[in-house]
Parts: sequence; C-alpha cells; structure tokens
Amino acid sequence: MSGPTTPSAGGPDAEQSAAAQPHAELQAAEKPLSEPTVPERQITDHWSTAVSRIRPGEILLRGYPVEQLIGRVSFAEQIWLMVRGELPTPVQGRLLEAALVAAVDHGPQAPSIAAARMAATCGVGLNSAVATGAGLLGDVHGGAGQQCMEVLARVVAGEDAREIVAEYRQQRAYVPGFGHRFHPRDPRRDPLLALVREAVASGEVPGDALRAGEELEAALAEGRTRPVPMNIDGATAIIYAELGFPAELGRGLFVLSRSVGILSHAWEESEGGARIKGPLPRPLLAGYHGPDQRDLGPRGEGEAPAAG
Amino acid sequence: MSGPTTPSAGGPDAEQSAAAQPHAELQAAEKPLSEPTVPERQITDHWSTAVSRIRPGEILLRGYPVEQLIGRVSFAEQIWLMVRGELPTPVQGRLLEAALVAAVDHGPQAPSIAAARMAATCGVGLNSAVATGAGLLGDVHGGAGQQCMEVLARVVAGEDAREIVAEYRQQRAYVPGFGHRFHPRDPRRDPLLALVREAVASGEVPGDALRAGEELEAALAEGRTRPVPMNIDGATAIIYAELGFPAELGRGLFVLSRSVGILSHAWEESEGGARIKGPLPRPLLAGYHGPDQRDLGPRGEGEAPAAG
Amino acid sequence: MSGPTTPSAGGPDAEQSAAAQPHAELQAAEKPLSEPTVPERQITDHWSTAVSRIRPGEILLRGYPVEQLIGRVSFAEQIWLMVRGELPTPVQGRLLEAALVAAVDHGPQAPSIAAARMAATCGVGLNSAVATGAGLLGDVHGGAGQQCMEVLARVVAGEDAREIVAEYRQQRAYVPGFGHRFHPRDPRRDPLLALVREAVASGEVPGDALRAGEELEAALAEGRTRPVPMNIDGATAIIYAELGFPAELGRGLFVLSRSVGILSHAWEESEGGARIKGPLPRPLLAGYHGPDQRDLGPRGEGEAPAAG
Amino acid sequence: MSGPTTPSAGGPDAEQSAAAQPHAELQAAEKPLSEPTVPERQITDHWSTAVSRIRPGEILLRGYPVEQLIGRVSFAEQIWLMVRGELPTPVQGRLLEAALVAAVDHGPQAPSIAAARMAATCGVGLNSAVATGAGLLGDVHGGAGQQCMEVLARVVAGEDAREIVAEYRQQRAYVPGFGHRFHPRDPRRDPLLALVREAVASGEVPGDALRAGEELEAALAEGRTRPVPMNIDGATAIIYAELGFPAELGRGLFVLSRSVGILSHAWEESEGGARIKGPLPRPLLAGYHGPDQRDLGPRGEGEAPAAG
Repeated sequence: MSGPTTPSAGGPDAEQSAAAQPHAELQAAEKPLSEPTVPERQITDHWSTAVSRIRPGEILLRGYPVEQLIGRVSFAEQIWLMVRGELPTPVQGRLLEAALVAAVDHGPQAPSIAAARMAATCGVGLNSAVATGAGLLGDVHGGAGQQCMEVLARVVAGEDAREIVAEYRQQRAYVPGFGHRFHPRDPRRDPLLALVREAVASGEVPGDALRAGEELEAALAEGRTRPVPMNIDGATAIIYAELGFPAELGRGLFVLSRSVGILSHAWEESEGGARIKGPLPRPLLAGYHGPDQRDLGPRGEGEAPAAG
Repeated sequence: MSGPTTPSAGGPDAEQSAAAQPHAELQAAEKPLSEPTVPERQITDHWSTAVSRIRPGEILLRGYPVEQLIGRVSFAEQIWLMVRGELPTPVQGRLLEAALVAAVDHGPQAPSIAAARMAATCGVGLNSAVATGAGLLGDVHGGAGQQCMEVLARVVAGEDAREIVAEYRQQRAYVPGFGHRFHPRDPRRDPLLALVREAVASGEVPGDALRAGEELEAALAEGRTRPVPMNIDGATAIIYAELGFPAELGRGLFVLSRSVGILSHAWEESEGGARIKGPLPRPLLAGYHGPDQRDLGPRGEGEAPAAG
Repeated sequence: MSGPTTPSAGGPDAEQSAAAQPHAELQAAEKPLSEPTVPERQITDHWSTAVSRIRPGEILLRGYPVEQLIGRVSFAEQIWLMVRGELPTPVQGRLLEAALVAAVDHGPQAPSIAAARMAATCGVGLNSAVATGAGLLGDVHGGAGQQCMEVLARVVAGEDAREIVAEYRQQRAYVPGFGHRFHPRDPRRDPLLALVREAVASGEVPGDALRAGEELEAALAEGRTRPVPMNIDGATAIIYAELGFPAELGRGLFVLSRSVGILSHAWEESEGGARIKGPLPRPLLAGYHGPDQRDLGPRGEGEAPAAG
Repeated sequence: MSGPTTPSAGGPDAEQSAAAQPHAELQAAEKPLSEPTVPERQITDHWSTAVSRIRPGEILLRGYPVEQLIGRVSFAEQIWLMVRGELPTPVQGRLLEAALVAAVDHGPQAPSIAAARMAATCGVGLNSAVATGAGLLGDVHGGAGQQCMEVLARVVAGEDAREIVAEYRQQRAYVPGFGHRFHPRDPRRDPLLALVREAVASGEVPGDALRAGEELEAALAEGRTRPVPMNIDGATAIIYAELGFPAELGRGLFVLSRSVGILSHAWEESEGGARIKGPLPRPLLAGYHGPDQRDLGPRGEGEAPAAG
C-alpha cells in the first residue's frame, strides 16, 4: 500500500508528482492483534464537510467540478455557491455583487484599515496584514449590519416599526442601520436600494425587508426636522435579508468585502517604505496621564534575593 | 464651530445624524500663544492614501464616486480597481475573476481551513475565524504562487528554462508552480490556461508569462516518463503575471480568494454545534513522547519561599 | 528644529543614534497664516495612556523607571503592576504567579494549541503562531473563568448558592468553573485552593470568593453520588476574584498564561520539520457529505459572455 | 464502552462530570470486516508532543505533574521549562525573568500596542486584542533581537567584530542590537548587562555572548565622537544567547514579554469607553493624494447588463 507522495521540506519527490491512493486500507492485514484500531471513517467524519470534496485530480465545490465553474461563474456567484450551497439566479448574484462592491473601504480612519496599514510596515506578510484588519471587524466595527438584519426580521415578523423605534429611543440607543457617525446621507444608500427595488419589481426577491427598512426610516423621521436616513449597514442588511442570508453570515460577507480595502491599503503602505509605523507622525509622542515618576524604594523583606 | 456628532457608547445622538464639519480650524483663535501646535496637514499626511477619499457624504474609490461603481462594476473589477488604481478592461477583469474563482478552497485538510473551522467553535465571531485562516496563508501555505511568479519573470527576462529546472533539481527542490503534493493533474490548470490563451489571442495580454510557463513545463518533462504538469499555483501565477500584478500582490489576491473557502467552512462549522473542537475526534487523545513522569524533588536553596 | 533621526529601510543614520527633541514646536513661527493647525496636545491626548511614559532615555512603567524594576520584581509582579497600576504585596504576587503557572497548557487537543502548531508549519513567524492560538481563546474556549467570576460575584453579593445552582440546572447548563469535560478531578484544583487558604489565613485576601466557591461546590454535590468538583476555571476564578481582578481581565491573564503553552507547542512543531500540516495524518482525507457530483449545465441566458 | 461525557452546546451532562475512558478500543469487536480501519497510534502520533501529557486527572508538563509545579516554580521558570524541557537553575531563571520584565512595553507609538488598543474598541474580546498586537511583532517590529543573536553568534564563532561592523556600514545598515531609533541611551541596557556580569562571575553562564556584545559596541564606537550603545534588543539578545536559547526562540520570548504591555494597553483602552477608535482624533480625517474625482463614463460594450 502506498499513499500520496509527500515532499518533505527540502526533499523533493523526484517525479514531483503525487500518486495518491487515499482510500486503501492501511496495514489492515499486518496490524498486531492487540494494537487498538479505529474505523477510518470515525477520523475522517470528524473533518467532514459538505462544502467541498478534494481528492487527487478532483475538486468538487458544492458538487460542481471546479473546472466547470472557472470562466462560467462570477466571483460573487462563486461566493454565493460556497456559503449557501447552490448557485444564485443572475439577478440574485448581481444584487449580492452590488453589496460586496459597496462596502470595500472606508479609509484609514477605520481601525481595521489603520491596523492593517501598520502591520504592513512590521515585516509580516500581506496575508498577516489582511488577517490583522479582518480581526478588528467585530461586533462594534462591522456588526451593525448584522444587528440591523435582526431588527428588520422583527418588522417582517409583524412588529410595529414605530414601537421598535420608540424602544431604541427609550434606551437612548441607535437603531442599527440608520443615521451615521460620519455621513449626513450615505452615498451608497440610494444606488443599493434602487437595485433592490428593481429586483422586487422583477419578482426575484420578496420585498419584505425593503418594506421593513422603509417603515423604520419613516418612523425615525416622524416629528423630526432632520431625517435619519438609512446608511450602508441598513442598505446592505436589506439586501442580505432579501436574499435570504442569515444575519451572522451577512457579517461574514461584509468581512469578505472589507478585506478588499484592507488588502489595498496594506499593499499601498508596504510599497511606501515606512518601517514600524506608529499612529503618530514623528516627532510626536503618545500622551501620558499616569503617575509622576516614583521610585521603587529599598529592597524589602519577602522580596526575592538579588539575581546572581 | 462644531464637529461631527459622536455617539458615545450607550449615549445616542438624539437626531441620530452626523453633522460633520471636519475641516474647520479648531479653536485656532482661542489657543494660548504658548501651547505648541502642529500643522493639521502633518497629522493627516501621516495617514494619507491614494486609495480612497472619505468625506461626509462622499466616498471616492481611486477617484470614482462609489455610487457610480455600485451595479456597474463586478466584484472582480472592483478588486482590480482598488489594488491597481485603474479599472481593468472587461477581458482583464474576467481573467482575474477566473483566478479568484479557481482558488477559493482546498478542503479541511488545508491548515488555513482547519484552523478557521476550529476557531468557529470557540466563541469568537466569524470575522475572527476568517482572520485565523488568513493568518496561516504564509510563505509555505499560499506562497508558491508568488515564488512561481518570480521564476516566470526570470524566464521572461531571458534565462533558459532548462537551466532553471536544472538549478532546482540540483538543490533537490521543487520548481514552484509545477507538480503537486496532491493532484496528479490539477483540474484547474487546463481551464485557466485556456482562458489565458484566449486573452493572448485577442491581444489583451502579452503572452510572455504563458510561454515561460510552457517552457518550464516542457523542460520539467524532458527525460521523464511521468510529466510534471503545472498546478494551480503555476496557472494563477501565469495569470497574475500576464495581468501585470507584482508577485507579492499575487499572494494577496490568493488570500482574498481563499478567504471565501475559509468563510464557508467556518460558517458550516459554526452551524454544526460543536464546541471547542480539537483536531481529534473523541475519545482519541494526543500522543506523548516526552519524559516519563518525574517528581520535582524537595524544596531547595535559592528557591522562593512557599506562597502564603 | 530637528526631530529624532529616523532610519529608513536600508538607510542608516551614520551615528546610529536618535537625538530626539519631541516637544519642540514645529514650524510654529513659519506656518502660513491660512494653514490650519491643531494643538499638539489634541493629537497626543488621542493616544494618551497611564500605563507607560516613553521619552528618549526614559521608560516609566506605571511611574516606575524600568531600570529599577529589572532584577527587582518578578515577571508575575510586573504583570500585576502593568495591568493594575500598583505593585502587589509579595503574597498577592505569588498567588497570581500560581494561577499563571497552572494554566499554561492543555495539550494539542485544545484548538488554540492545535491551530498554533499548524501555523508554525506554514512559514509565518513564531509571533504569528502565538497570535493564531491566542485568537482562539474566545468566550467558549477560555471564557469559563470569566463567567465563573461573575457567578462568584453573585454569591459574594448575597445570592444563595443553591438557588444559583438550581437556576443553571433548570436551563440545563453547566455552572461555569465546576465539573470538567475531561478531568474527573482536576489536578490543579487542590494546590491552588491550598494557596488561597494560606493567603486568607494570613489576612492577605478577604476569603469571600473562596467561600462562595465552596458553597457552590457543596450545593452542586447535594443529592448526588458523584461530586461535581471545582475545575481549573473555578480555582483560578477564585484566585482572580480574591485578588480583586475584574472578570474580563481574568480572561486576559488566562491568555497570557496559555500563550506560554501556545509558544512551546508552536516552537516544537516548527522544529519538527513538517510543512503545511493539516489535522489528519496522510493518507487520510477529510470526509464529505455534500451533494454528489453534478454538472453546471449549458450556458444560459443572463450569464456573462465567455471570457476572452 | 463509553467515552468522556461531552457537554453539547446547551445540553449539559446531568452529573456535570466527565467519566473519560479514552483508551478503550472503539467497537473493535463490532466493526464490519470490510470497513477500513487505521491504527489508533497513527492518528494520535500525528498530534504527539513531548511538551505535555494530558489524561483524565493528569497533567504532566515536560514530565512534571502540574500540581507539583504550582506554588513551587516562578512563572519565568515555568516558561523556561515549557520551551526548553528542563527547569533552569535559580540564577538562570532570574536572568530570563529580568529579560522578560524589561521588554513588556514601549507605549502606544509602537504599532503592536496601537493596533491592540484600537482592537479593544471594536467589540472583539481581550484575547483578540492581544492576538492583534502579537501578530504585528514580525521581523521588523520585534525581530532585531533575533538578528542580533545571529550577529553575536558570528563573533563567538571567531569572526572579528570590527570586520562585521565594517560590513554593515558598507551596506549602510544598522548592526541589530545597537543604537536606537528612539533612545540616545537605552535605560534597560545597564541593569540587564549588570545581571549578566554577575551570572558570568558566578560561573552560571559562559560569558561568550557578553564579550561579543562588548566587542561590537567597542568596534562601533571607534573613530566616533558619539557612542553607539547597545539597546534593549542587544542586551536581551546577549541574555538569551548566554542562556542558550536559539535565536528564533528569543523572538518568541520577546512576544511573551511584549504581550503583557499589549494586554495592559488593550485593557486600559477597553475601560476608556471609546468605540471604533481610529488613529486620528476627531474631527481630523485621513489625507488623500489620489486622483481627483472622476466619472465612470457611460455604460460600454462588454459590460454586464444593468442589475434587475
């Protein structure tokens, strides 16, 4: 019995090929009667997946041979297939694509971008800079879309939009997806909602989440001189809800999108030549509001003996 | 003068709006004459970028207002624009798209996938699971494409493919991009190279890297009964080289692609209900080849007094 | 005016020194009247800290010059100083030290350890392998200590231990800190609690959390033939609570401790020579429970034109 | 046969105990004759380690039962034991401890610290903030100590210090471990070297690396009015070399040390209440040096149809 030829570090396979026979029974006939064995399936089941099947010469992605997908599906359609298990319709795919295109970047003042830029000056690879940035897209920075999807679901389920708005106001909290810390009116809102309306009109998506978002926006505007428009989190939340994505997965899709900006900024910074870039430009130094300088005092009892 | 209304944690802006006036001079008239000041530009230059300009109500991505890009460019074209600074031609965009589609996954036996699946059972968010996986795509796991681009560049620059192959064989090392640890023939090679050939035929890409790859493949085959075909790293390296991407950026693009599989697997695992999933199925335990059990011995001199 | 001499990548400062004058006013006298300025303090305050003051030739850690601490304080005392702001008493320091010593490792079946071991075979540095492992110590894997501290606080605040136990039983949930997924009796429990009892007896710590933990353990044992002893999370939770650490910070201290095991395992794996180590030994492959192979079907309407 | 009682998410073990029988043969008698099996050892060997043995009721760390180590060894001695495999002498342990104490922090202008502080405002746990910071301690930010150890080794091996200095000067590069981007004279140098000299005098460490460092420092000073003193990287490199740590592991120990500062800063920031903290204080915005605003132009041929 032989298994795939494994190149060890520095030691090549002379043929540089991989003749794999992964399913052969390993030494089944030779094992000592007393040595414990386990069914192979118990081990492989622990790492079983429905996402892909990888065998020598074969890569199935949700059942489709990868060679059929290459050149046939868009990257957005591939993303849908991989996370959902089936291909989207062309309209669904382009709606997802618009949401992914819309959220790629928000500049170096976003901590995910700033941290990735700094990482790129620290001698770690581009992959680590991307990982650094993605790691900062937590509940607070990147989670508003997921939270908004949860609110939309409440309205779709029958709750009154005005009552939900009143509930948030009473807690002195924002309704996630509306208003913005930065943009008076988010430039991404209108084109995204226009695409949703087209999809609703063509019968491709139900329209419930869109209606829910519009009801919340209207309820937020009542009695106010300045509107509280939907922002990017709200618009993409509507898209992901209309497309049937669970809320948590909506956040995962935001991470894929924002990773594009993270990579772009990390790449630019790495080309810029800075080393060990901190948040402040020289010669500024971080501020200090701790204790004045103080001395440790003489060595006391109970203290470890001096080294050496 | 007032600045953007900032929602503090738990304290909302009653209007839930953001009236930002970011460029006003801050208290310039009021500052004490003796307090040090710095030119605002010195600070903002430290975080300056050519990738995007974010101002209240405005998001420019490489100069294009984001609202024009939404619904007009594909996600692959957006990726190209963000990392390169200009939009690709439609043919270039689809070639990039094919490379991104091809590399999304290689299953749970890939450590980047396995680590992300385990992370998803540890109570960290999906973004952290994606970051975990991306962090493992280092020089060794994910770097072969970049190394292959460097070899292709040598051939394009005029070095002889056979001599390069001989040099690697002498060091008992693999020529990156050829052969495979796993697939006798990588199913992604042919469709990707077919797309490159079409693009060369239409004059959209030069064809130099494709020729270089074919020369290397032929040189590797000389005198052997079993060919050493190009693999996914080689095929995508050719694509990225033909499209003019620097080698390091080719690795960054691989990270974006593989993040799709990482997200898909992390999502599947998080839905599966396992908690704190280790690499072995119960009741197996990790092996041990360390010292037999040994005792610390009596308390000795120089040792810290017993606690308490 | 000059600032610190900055070595650019590849371009050294001939003197290899850094003559820093960080507080000089920058071009204050020369700035054009119309160029916006900001008070330097506004910038440095944004990055102000009470933890340390770093100035040329000076490093104050919570007010103490670092040169006074070197050789005088233990690493555990330094950790206490840095996170709490003041030095501990010798007894407090050794109790913290015991908790840190106790939690360093739980073997490769722990996902934080397994993921770090795999990272070490992927060509990322040891720091990235440590980061990978630490990133998996989330709410579920590493959070039980923090949750236990919250339960102890409820008992210390006056709630009845039996009622809390009943509440968890009703929700069919574990009381965090008690029982164990693995050890019938955790070998770390007794030595840690003995150290706490000594500290209580010497009047160094109040003893409230210890009593609370004992009450919970007793309440869990009522009416059962098999006890439900406190585990490592419970014992260290008692220590951190007795020492006055907030619950969230208790988790941070666990991260510092576990990082030691993470580093040790990553180092061992990196010395072992494996490359791109997956979770399964060759020739095993991950299982698959997705769709049977299926074809994409003929190109349909609405689909993007073929590439090229 | 039964295995450890596994609490599934939300489903507790009524006894809240773990009756583990990990070594029982699983259904060995019942398996169908045709089902492939593998020797259990092949699986457990894949995850075998010499660092620790974890069995129900037992935790051996490098052979020592953990309950013997608790309260007996310092955290620094535990770190040595875990990474080296044997306990240090008391003098060796305190020298390591001094190096760990010395390197814990360098303030928010260090990118590892700044990135961790920002992460702490993004709704990820403290463990993720620590992972973020550790991930930035790459070759450039944290690698100088490792590089210095490699230079010391060259001098210890017999190379002339003056020739090595000349070699670096010719390449217009810094000798790692000497001079500093920030401190004219690093306050950590003298106390650390004093501890090394005491250990050399007591015969506990060989003294070769110390001599090598002094020779390099002297060679760097020749013909200069301003000295180029050893810095923290050089002093800790000497310590780690004298203690026999491989260079790469020296960097790992620096990561453990710096994680203390990273945790402290992340904790302080998380208590401060900021949310989604970027690098610039409001109302400043990141600078922009990209293209002026430009329009996408009319929809062209080859472009995907409008969505919907």
